[in-house]
This record gives sequence, C-alpha cells and structure tokens, in this order.
Amino acid sequence: MRGTVLYGTGDVRSEERPVPEITAPTDAIIRVVAACVCGSDLWPYRGMPPVKEPAPMGHEYCGIVEAVGDAVTTIKPGQFVIGSFCISDNTCPNCRYGYQSMCMQGGFMSGAQAELLRVPQADGTLVATPDMPADDLIPHLLTISDVLGTGWFAADAANVRPGSTVVVVGDGAVGLLGVLSAKQMGAARIIAMSRHESRQQLASEFGATDIVSERGDAGVERIKALTDGVGADSVLECVGTNESMQQALRSARRGGYVSYVGVPHGVELQAGQLFSTMVHLHGGPAPVRRYLPDLIDLVWQRKITPGKVFDLVLPLADVAEGYRAMDERRAIKALLRP
Amino acid sequence: MRGTVLYGTGDVRSEERPVPEITAPTDAIIRVVAACVCGSDLWPYRGMPPVKEPAPMGHEYCGIVEAVGDAVTTIKPGQFVIGSFCISDNTCPNCRYGYQSMCMQGGFMSGAQAELLRVPQADGTLVATPDMPADDLIPHLLTISDVLGTGWFAADAANVRPGSTVVVVGDGAVGLLGVLSAKQMGAARIIAMSRHESRQQLASEFGATDIVSERGDAGVERIKALTDGVGADSVLECVGTNESMQQALRSARRGGYVSYVGVPHGVELQAGQLFSTMVHLHGGPAPVRRYLPDLIDLVWQRKITPGKVFDLVLPLADVAEGYRAMDERRAIKALLRP
Repeated sequence: MRGTVLYGTGDVRSEERPVPEITAPTDAIIRVVAACVCGSDLWPYRGMPPVKEPAPMGHEYCGIVEAVGDAVTTIKPGQFVIGSFCISDNTCPNCRYGYQSMCMQGGFMSGAQAELLRVPQADGTLVATPDMPADDLIPHLLTISDVLGTGWFAADAANVRPGSTVVVVGDGAVGLLGVLSAKQMGAARIIAMSRHESRQQLASEFGATDIVSERGDAGVERIKALTDGVGADSVLECVGTNESMQQALRSARRGGYVSYVGVPHGVELQAGQLFSTMVHLHGGPAPVRRYLPDLIDLVWQRKITPGKVFDLVLPLADVAEGYRAMDERRAIKALLRP
Repeated sequence: MRGTVLYGTGDVRSEERPVPEITAPTDAIIRVVAACVCGSDLWPYRGMPPVKEPAPMGHEYCGIVEAVGDAVTTIKPGQFVIGSFCISDNTCPNCRYGYQSMCMQGGFMSGAQAELLRVPQADGTLVATPDMPADDLIPHLLTISDVLGTGWFAADAANVRPGSTVVVVGDGAVGLLGVLSAKQMGAARIIAMSRHESRQQLASEFGATDIVSERGDAGVERIKALTDGVGADSVLECVGTNESMQQALRSARRGGYVSYVGVPHGVELQAGQLFSTMVHLHGGPAPVRRYLPDLIDLVWQRKITPGKVFDLVLPLADVAEGYRAMDERRAIKALLRP
C-alpha cells in the first residue's frame, strides 16, 4: 500500500509500504478516506529536530474500518470512523478525567498519510459517525481528528465563555479553528492576530470581529487599545514559539486565561511574570477524544464548516507538494486523498 | 507612635515613627489592634534582596478606625476593620474580575507593624466586622488579612472541590492554612508535606489526612503511592522556591491544578514539562479582598480557628524577637500586640 515516509530534512516521500496488520486484540485497521499534513509535521520536515531514521508520517485521519481485533467491541468493520491523533483506552484515570492525550496506555499516532492504518486501542481512540457521510462532509470531519480538536481545546483551556473577549495568536489552521471554536462557545469579541490577507478573511468568516496585524510591543498595544487598557479574558497561543507565548501572556488581562497547544520550541516561561500578571496557564497535546462526539455532531448537523482550512487538495502520491506548499506558506493546510 | 523599620539584613528595629495622617480623601487611619510577621518579610530580613533604604515593615493588620478621608463612605470611625495586604479600589476592571491584588489603583501595604496605620483606598481595601469582636477572635480575624486569605486563594486557585485529593507543599503558616482551606472546600484527602512534628500536628488538626515527610524524588514517589500512581487533583505550592515548585508540578495528576502563592525566588518553569504534563498553573499575590467578607463570616461564626498558626505572641516593641524566632523556625508565626 502507499504510505508517506520522512527520510530527512525536506525529504518526504510517497512510497510502497507494508500493509498494516492487527497486532493486538485492541487494534483496528482502517482504510483511510482522507488524511492531511499537520503544522507539527513541519517541525521535523524543517529539521527541528532532524529525524534519526525514516519516519512514517501522518496522524490526522478518517476512514472506513476494515478489520478489528478480538477485544474491540464498539467499533465494527464498515463503519466510518474518526480518531484522535493521540491513542487512548478512554478508561484509565487520566482518560476519565478528560485527559485522553495523557492516557496511561497511550501514545501518538503515526503513519496516517497512507492508504491503510493500524489504530491501537480502537475502542478508546475511534468514534464512528452516525452513518456513511456525504462526500462534502469529509474535509470537515477530517479536521476533528486533530486541527479542529486542538483549536477547540485551545478555546476550552482558555476558558472561553459566552460574552468573553478572546485573542487568538497564530493564523495557522489551528489558530483559525480556535477562532471558530471561540465563536461556537459564545465569545462576544474575537481578535485574530494575522498579517496574511487570505487567513484574515477566513478568520473573519469563522467569527473574528477584529484583526490585528501588528506583533510584539505594537501588537500588545493594539490589544490593550481594543480592550480599554484591560487585556483579553482568554488568549489562545496557537504557534509554540517564545515570541507567540510572550504575545499571548502580554495580551491577557490580569487573572485572564492563556492556553497553548503548539509543541513549545524555545519557549521560556518567567515565574515572576506569571506571578505578577496572575494569568492562568493551561495547555498541552489536545485531548481530542474528549470532544470527538460533540464535534462530529456539530459537523453532522452542518453547524460548522472547519474543513475550509483546506485550501489545497492532493492525491496521496503528491504528499511532498503538500509539505512544500505549507512550508512555504502557499497553503494553509493540505488534504490528502488516498 | 511606635513602628517597625528594617534597616538591613537581620537588622529590624522597633522605634518612634511619625504619626500617619490622611493624605488623600480615600484614606483611613486605623489604630492597630494586632499585626504579625509574614513569611515574605523574612526574604528582605535575610537580605534576599537587601533593603536599599530603611523600610517600614508589616502588611497584615486589623484594628479600629480612627479617622477617614472625605471620600470614604462605607468605613466609619469606631468600626473594627480587617484589610487586605493589597490596596484596592474594588471598582476597577481587575477588581471587578476578582483580582483586587492587581487593582489599577493598587499597591502593597507597608508599615502595619505599628500602633497606627494609614490605609489608602479605605472603601475598597477594608471590611468591617459585624460588631466589636471578642478578644479571643482577634488572632483568627488577623489571619484573614493575608496568611489565611493567601492559603484560601491557594486552594481556590488549585481548584479544590468536594472530594478532591489535595497536596500542600510547604508547612509554613500559609501552607497550614491551605490545609484548613482545602478542608473547608470539601477535599476528601489532604496530604501535607512537612518534616516538623509541631507543624505536622497542626496540619492534622486543620484537616490533613496524610503527612509526607520525604522531599524530592522520594516525596514524589510517596505522593504517587498514596494516589494509586495517578497524582493529586490539586497541589498548593506555598513556598516559592524551585524545589517546591518542582515538588508541586510532579505531585499533580495529568491535567491537575497547581497553584503558587509564594513570591517566586529562583523558580524555573519548563514549558515542555508543563506541556507534557498538562497541569493547570495559576498563582500570584492573593486577591484577599475577594474573600474578606466570607472569611470574616467563617471566623465570626467560630467555624474555623486559623489563628492557631500564631505560636508566639509579643508586644510590638519586641518585634525583632518575632523575626528572629521565625527566621530560625522556632516559631511558625509571631503575633504582635501594639
């Protein structure tokens, strides 16, 4: 079967790979209907850090169940399923507290940019849709696997409530879907920080009420000016750099909430800054499994259209172009069709 | 009038000071009935950092109002009042969000280890008791000004709920009153980390169900063993050192809550550690004003006895002995009677 492997910096290939098989009774094998390239895939693609050995790529996926192991009870062959990018049994204490991305039997998915995929802990990781979805729903459903689930967690972790004033730092697909999530949670004002016109437009379409293109001190000043000098209730840090974290911390009001969902790269947190501003800080790999049923329902009812973040659709064989286009910021996010 | 001044490392003196006067129409002057020495007073007393000029000391106080400025409307001469260690107008946006310690017209009190004290923003900083208190209530009421208010905030910021499993790092007066606060909030299990027998006893009296005397890796192992390998829902970091913060972060369950209320000294936060453990982090100078009415009520109804943290009572003139006893850990906390 066709799969995707990262061989080194900038060297990602579509190639023939072994057909995955059930290796544990809790596994499922799914035929991937759609996968995509994640912003986090770009870190190793850019050599930060370089891969040590060829790495099967992809962790966002939806598809049709081909086979399940003997211990799988809730997922059946023939169902259309969406899974989290994190493996979870959904029964351990961490899962029961809603932190399925910290499952004691967990781990991270890989190899989803492929025709077939083995999903461990199928009962706890996958959720089936009510029926076989219409084709136009596929991109929207695919986002739930990670990018929407992560944007949703960012808004939830930043305590977005009806009437909140929200700042979203980062105009990648996660940030844009953070805007959509904040809108769904009833935010009254959503300030998207973006300097790219096409992304600004999508942010507005998803519910942003204000766009701030300035960064650094000037960006903080603009946020303060837009919030009567107080700062925002909730700030979603959707990048993972030190600059974006500083932007986020300095944009929140005293006692406000800052969430962060990008893997931190060079982020330095000052305990004194946190103490003297009293922001709440919460983040990490999104526990997407917690949100899967509700997000599937929102897409199924056609209440949200998160799949609009896909501005490039490629056959799986052309995955390398998807990485290139996202690396060069020619595309927000690339959808792959096996 | 008699007041307390820190002249240099280890050099605190009781001496004659100018009588404070109303300098703004929002001021009040109170005759101090009881004050005390705070753990945070010990940092400059120990030269971390050394004072640059003689500093009037003390920020925990209760007393009787002598005079008020023309703009003061809710506080009247003759009332018994308790004030926060933070000055607040209680009307600015930060105050309205419950962060009175971040008041836009705020600041920190000083000079309370004295016979008379000027309190700025009297309407927003002070709360009167229902009546003149019985003498035995004075120590309990005094704690509300900072040490109980801070312990209470630590429990609140760590999301203590009915049924929670709680760890308290630090057996100073704040940590001990964090135990009392967690108990009041309905925690099912309260693990106090302490290696001093008298403090362990008081922790148990305040509601601790378990005592852990180990620290570092051994301390973390004990907490994990006591929580089925999961970690605690809520951890209160009541010290302010890097060791205590690490103890706190490593004692929390995945997605748990860590609060911190000691001014950070040398605390290094790793973004990667926070990301990969998903703890919630929230702390800062306690917004005591938010809790003043409820805590006064709890003491007034004789439901709590936080004043038990005072194991040394001195006349104000002997304040230097109070600092020495706390510095040498001979006393948990010293109460001063002018």
